Amino acid sequence: MNYVMVLYILGYVLKFESAFLLLPAFVGLLYQEKTALAYLLMSAICFLCGVLFMHRKPKSKMLYAREGFAIVALSWIVMSIFGAVPFVLANDIPFYVDALFETISGFTTTGASILKEVESLSHASLFWRSFSHWIGGMGVFVFIMAILPMMGGFNMNLMRAESTGPSVSKLVPHVKDTAKILYGIYIAITLLCIIFLTVFGMPVFDAFTTAFGTIGTGGFGIKNDSFASYSPALQNIVTIFMILSGINYSLYFLVLSKKIRDALKLEEVRWYIITILASALIIIFDIRHMYQSLGETIRHAFFQVGSVITTTGFSTVDYDLWPELSKCILVILMFTGACSGSTGGGIKFARIVILFKTIRKELSLSIHPREIRKVRMDGHAINHDVIRSTNVFMSIYFILLLASTLLISVDEYNFTTNFTAVAATLNNIGPGLDLVGPSQNFSIFSVFSKFVLMFDMIAGRLELFPMMVLLLPDTWKRR
Amino acid sequence: MNYVMVLYILGYVLKFESAFLLLPAFVGLLYQEKTALAYLLMSAICFLCGVLFMHRKPKSKMLYAREGFAIVALSWIVMSIFGAVPFVLANDIPFYVDALFETISGFTTTGASILKEVESLSHASLFWRSFSHWIGGMGVFVFIMAILPMMGGFNMNLMRAESTGPSVSKLVPHVKDTAKILYGIYIAITLLCIIFLTVFGMPVFDAFTTAFGTIGTGGFGIKNDSFASYSPALQNIVTIFMILSGINYSLYFLVLSKKIRDALKLEEVRWYIITILASALIIIFDIRHMYQSLGETIRHAFFQVGSVITTTGFSTVDYDLWPELSKCILVILMFTGACSGSTGGGIKFARIVILFKTIRKELSLSIHPREIRKVRMDGHAINHDVIRSTNVFMSIYFILLLASTLLISVDEYNFTTNFTAVAATLNNIGPGLDLVGPSQNFSIFSVFSKFVLMFDMIAGRLELFPMMVLLLPDTWKRR
Repeated sequence: MNYVMVLYILGYVLKFESAFLLLPAFVGLLYQEKTALAYLLMSAICFLCGVLFMHRKPKSKMLYAREGFAIVALSWIVMSIFGAVPFVLANDIPFYVDALFETISGFTTTGASILKEVESLSHASLFWRSFSHWIGGMGVFVFIMAILPMMGGFNMNLMRAESTGPSVSKLVPHVKDTAKILYGIYIAITLLCIIFLTVFGMPVFDAFTTAFGTIGTGGFGIKNDSFASYSPALQNIVTIFMILSGINYSLYFLVLSKKIRDALKLEEVRWYIITILASALIIIFDIRHMYQSLGETIRHAFFQVGSVITTTGFSTVDYDLWPELSKCILVILMFTGACSGSTGGGIKFARIVILFKTIRKELSLSIHPREIRKVRMDGHAINHDVIRSTNVFMSIYFILLLASTLLISVDEYNFTTNFTAVAATLNNIGPGLDLVGPSQNFSIFSVFSKFVLMFDMIAGRLELFPMMVLLLPDTWKRR
Repeated sequence: MNYVMVLYILGYVLKFESAFLLLPAFVGLLYQEKTALAYLLMSAICFLCGVLFMHRKPKSKMLYAREGFAIVALSWIVMSIFGAVPFVLANDIPFYVDALFETISGFTTTGASILKEVESLSHASLFWRSFSHWIGGMGVFVFIMAILPMMGGFNMNLMRAESTGPSVSKLVPHVKDTAKILYGIYIAITLLCIIFLTVFGMPVFDAFTTAFGTIGTGGFGIKNDSFASYSPALQNIVTIFMILSGINYSLYFLVLSKKIRDALKLEEVRWYIITILASALIIIFDIRHMYQSLGETIRHAFFQVGSVITTTGFSTVDYDLWPELSKCILVILMFTGACSGSTGGGIKFARIVILFKTIRKELSLSIHPREIRKVRMDGHAINHDVIRSTNVFMSIYFILLLASTLLISVDEYNFTTNFTAVAATLNNIGPGLDLVGPSQNFSIFSVFSKFVLMFDMIAGRLELFPMMVLLLPDTWKRR
């Protein structure tokens, strides 16, 4: 491990955080809140620590895979450790472990909260909570661009656009340019969301925080009832922007470069849309007697499906009160997650499509043993490494799922609560069912269980591998 | 598909069933029950159908993989369709779908029952229920010996003994001889179990049915309270025989051929034993206040752990009333299952050990990209095909698990019930939790859900592949 280099980059990250913290401080000043000072102070501390961390210039700038994994995992951890402090200083979340849980939930765009109610929080803290989603969403793109390619097979062509032909790659020959376009799209969609929300009557503060939670697929709300009290029009706008945020950004990439035909060919996006439509239709049928009009039923069904499949976690109704079939669909959508190459979490449709295709291939091979068949996606044969890494991902995923459920069951809550609490954190959704349902929160868990769930949130956010690598003793050996 | 050959073998299977049905008929006659006639009649019908099926001699005796898969899946289906009839004729289970569920549950050694109470059943039917477990357990060995090798990688060296060295393979050069030794061990353990149970005071009829359910890892009891009313000594005997039945039969093989050192090297068995001990210890600690003495606590903990991990499904207490941690451990043991090469179900320890080793290898590769490392088990490098097939198994397994949970949730029971009902059938255990807990039964489900669960029982029993192959249209094409 090149410790100096790792520390250097973490210092760089802290300087960024220092800048980010000025925004909630500014919001606090705008609302003449004392808490602004907490954010100003923390911004200064982050800056100082950043300078300190960067004090020793690394002799070797070489970064191997293990440094890459460690840096990305540690970035999320360090940002959360520092980012949690202002909540305590501002006395909005007095207990540090809870503040840390809330901050990790923010940066990992999970949206699981330990707060029993949020409306009494200062504007600065409400802004910081939501803004952390947006920073986290942006961080995911840094991760996709800079770190995933290091993972070899683990890249799984998250950004399909880069491999769909010479013209696209000519358009963006360097990783840096691709990153710029990605951030451009991300910022543009966010602005568009803010504009739509304000035009349809949402207060500006609400519009900003909502857009951060929506485009970052986070899910922290600023109202106790999440999204229930906003107008139907605003709910529908959020539904649309949530679903747009779960789409592989390659699609926007391709559309911008006028490759509409290639965009329509993206199998992952196709299955994502089909799944949303099918799930919403079944749920509409299942909950048809619960609401006054068909319009209301359709609105709630699409909002909840969009919220869960994109792993955002907003809610307009308490879906824990829905019939079991609808709840079971939502639980399954918790696992599928959104598209790869988006800010959404979960297993992701790319992996699921690959798994189904691999099964079909293997079954076919078993009755035609001499057949030669390749798994193909978007018209291209998939590299064997991608299939292998998908399988390893799934193995780690299910072991983490079962192990975490077992570990938090020491708190003796019921199985549905434990299982969906893990599913909701590992997949970066937010609320689960029963005691962690949309009208409940995560404050019930012990400190031990909270740490398990924090680990799951970061592991899920970073496609599992970086956090697992942190656990290997080999990672920490000096070169 | 070589239809004539498939039909011919199914005829052969039916003739066997005809012979098997004479035993419950004999038991019925012994107890002077009219139901004996139902079994006699059905035995005759099976024989006639067997003759009819075998009427056309197949010109080509060639069996390819797809015929192998189809035959094994259809054998379980045909035997269950015929075997369910006497329950209806005897008026013990008047509704045919329920009788079919019960019979499939028997032959797949699951032990999930639709009966609200069993003590009013005729002796003949009670005997047939339990005997079907024993036949099913035997069938699994036919399957392991004759069909699994066809599956190429899917074999996963279930019978490690065959590949541990020249001396063992010299001992049993032919599949037929291996099969004979396997049946010998199976019958010997069964007799031993019967003897122990009767010596410790169990009535002979109870001893036979209990031994069938124990050694076949089935779980149908002949008492409404399963095993609660038997003496502690009898409960402990069953615990030991359940655990012995979940061990890879290679171990007995090796012990018989005096290769004790090789037997001790079997990693799968080692992890199986460690898991049993660790689970029981945690549960003993968790339920320490529920029973009067430590002895009683230890007895119940080991009985339930042994019953669930070997996927037998007997119970001495209603573990649905245990604290959540203990229940969560049992749910996880439902999935691990027992060892490969045993009559137990579930994912099996061999696969789990392979998955963990693959994860370790891949993680290590990710930080040492140039390392060359092979996954090894019992001192041998594992073939790449075995890893691939393990991964495909896991993918199919989790898709079946989620899809089945979704399908049966149309009945609108709660998530814990649905999830554990699928887990309990797919893993061939029997009881789950909540509405399908040990003191409950599967009669609550609709006919549709019952068929889903029947599919899961057979799929789980046959290591998933044969039932999936039945669903491929290609399988049914004539050559």
